[in-house]
Amino acid sequence: MEENKDYYHGGEIKSDSLIDFSVNTNFFVNEIEFTKKEIQEATSFYPDRESKELVRKVAGKNNISPDHIVMGNGASQIITLLPFCIDIENALIIEPTFSGYERALQAKGAKVKYLFLDEKDDFSFGESRVKEIERFVKEFKNHGNSAVYICSPNNPTGKVIKKDTLKDVLDICKKYGAFLVVDESFIDFADDERDKSLVCFIDEYKNLFIIRSFTKIYSIPGIRLGYGICSDEKVIEKMRLLQPEWSISGLAQIAGAKLLDSDFEIEKSLMDIKNEREYLERELERLGIRVFPSDVNFILIKVNAEGGFYDNLLRKGIYLRKSSNFPGLTDEYYRIAIRGHEDNKKLIEVIEKLI
Amino acid sequence: MEENKDYYHGGEIKSDSLIDFSVNTNFFVNEIEFTKKEIQEATSFYPDRESKELVRKVAGKNNISPDHIVMGNGASQIITLLPFCIDIENALIIEPTFSGYERALQAKGAKVKYLFLDEKDDFSFGESRVKEIERFVKEFKNHGNSAVYICSPNNPTGKVIKKDTLKDVLDICKKYGAFLVVDESFIDFADDERDKSLVCFIDEYKNLFIIRSFTKIYSIPGIRLGYGICSDEKVIEKMRLLQPEWSISGLAQIAGAKLLDSDFEIEKSLMDIKNEREYLERELERLGIRVFPSDVNFILIKVNAEGGFYDNLLRKGIYLRKSSNFPGLTDEYYRIAIRGHEDNKKLIEVIEKLI
Repeated sequence: MEENKDYYHGGEIKSDSLIDFSVNTNFFVNEIEFTKKEIQEATSFYPDRESKELVRKVAGKNNISPDHIVMGNGASQIITLLPFCIDIENALIIEPTFSGYERALQAKGAKVKYLFLDEKDDFSFGESRVKEIERFVKEFKNHGNSAVYICSPNNPTGKVIKKDTLKDVLDICKKYGAFLVVDESFIDFADDERDKSLVCFIDEYKNLFIIRSFTKIYSIPGIRLGYGICSDEKVIEKMRLLQPEWSISGLAQIAGAKLLDSDFEIEKSLMDIKNEREYLERELERLGIRVFPSDVNFILIKVNAEGGFYDNLLRKGIYLRKSSNFPGLTDEYYRIAIRGHEDNKKLIEVIEKLI
Repeated sequence: MEENKDYYHGGEIKSDSLIDFSVNTNFFVNEIEFTKKEIQEATSFYPDRESKELVRKVAGKNNISPDHIVMGNGASQIITLLPFCIDIENALIIEPTFSGYERALQAKGAKVKYLFLDEKDDFSFGESRVKEIERFVKEFKNHGNSAVYICSPNNPTGKVIKKDTLKDVLDICKKYGAFLVVDESFIDFADDERDKSLVCFIDEYKNLFIIRSFTKIYSIPGIRLGYGICSDEKVIEKMRLLQPEWSISGLAQIAGAKLLDSDFEIEKSLMDIKNEREYLERELERLGIRVFPSDVNFILIKVNAEGGFYDNLLRKGIYLRKSSNFPGLTDEYYRIAIRGHEDNKKLIEVIEKLI
């Protein structure tokens, strides 16, 4: 049992005796299977440089033009290339959130500012925050390209931001010539995800860039597949130019096309997640633990860190995601991925005995 | 049967009725196979961000430090990131060669110059060319970072450049503060590849960057796996920073580790390639076709294009690699990947009937 102290994303500790609540992929989908022929094809032939079949299916699913889609070697490739692609010089990140945006912006040499959501508001992003964003984009204006980064549903807080609120942010960004980057990697977990996504604004707003992931909802973190959506075709073209020629592997293209054909399985998994999320929220609150309300397949909690909460759980075979490396959070915060009922029950039992 | 006219790399035309001489991967290795458990692991878990096991094996194979290796989502990822990684402002490419270097340099906004090898020298890179390179790097000096790009063995000409000659280029680059980038994607096909690679200079020269590929020698183009070698640890660190967090997929890491354990298979394939290369060179010359001597698993030829050579072959089920998109070559040049004897014999028979 070995842990990398410098970096934790979840899943770093490998042990058969641990129940892993740290990796937030969909627990309730069956593992994708491949035929021998598919594996052979995925290995022995160059992948389609343009991922044409997959782009066509993604376009169909989202009801958008294939020209507005760029597939990625994981959403993380899209995130990594974006600062170079739109030559971002100044960025504002709504925190606490996934550290990948900051990493990519800094690798490009962009200046990064932060807007911290408040614990007392359950880290929700309310209409009042729009004014604060306006101050930033106004300040950035005429200082090269700028971008506002928002993750919705947000990792690690689990909250979806209201579409009306995001629309206001989008308008303000447009007014001051800034890009709005919205990471929707967890959007498929939200109820009525079609209604919550900003994809309906994609044709109208050329300054909107949406990031999507196959990793989380389909539980294929090893495959590496995600995509970006933007109606500014120069942005899409530049992204393709910055990508290695064949960066979407053969297996990723085959997996993506298969998974988009099996979306019925996802519906069922969302009901399971909802039931288990309600169970965990209720039980954790009963134990006096602060629970931040979530719309997705993980829950952020706040506990008293002094009692050695994390290490005690680890000793009992329960592996949570430490969250102190999310800017704005401390070692009192942990993220819990929602698993099957037996595992979730075990989690509650172990915590109950500890406190 | 459909061809993308704007781009040809080989393998674009898919048809069971064609014999594909266009893709230059190793014909003589068995397809890699994966167990169900390996596929499951490659799919359901996040890949190791640092590809530790694979880096250790690559270091062992090359007898270098793991700190000097960066794995890539294909050699093409290394090529794409390199101009950003060492902030190249001026580059010299030895042509005709793979178009990927130019594409990557231009995507970064670097200025690119070209040094054309001569057909009358069989496109070989002789000692006399070193002086010409010196002129370039001297001119680049004090104008930001500069780099010289050489592919050896070269694609599409198939020639290895003498190590002594490359050592002279390396010294000159060092003298004027330039990087030397050597793409050794085909080095494993050359006789005594250990003796021909520049890897022995890696510790001594921090300005040397070597590119390697798993794609060609192991015939796994769909998997996407390659690596870079450099003893300037700042360069390696910057490359890792510019890469997406998990860009080496689970399957690529498993495949790479397995393949490095089965290098005995490669030895055998090299003998087959050599025999078939000699057969093809002899027969093509007998038919009056200009053949450029090759050290690897493909051969560049020059024919009279007026007779519709390429299209006539295609109609007879023979698919060659057009080479007119290599700078310096015209539609008289074609690249032939070496296949098994039956296929090679068929190629000769079809050409013989045509001319």
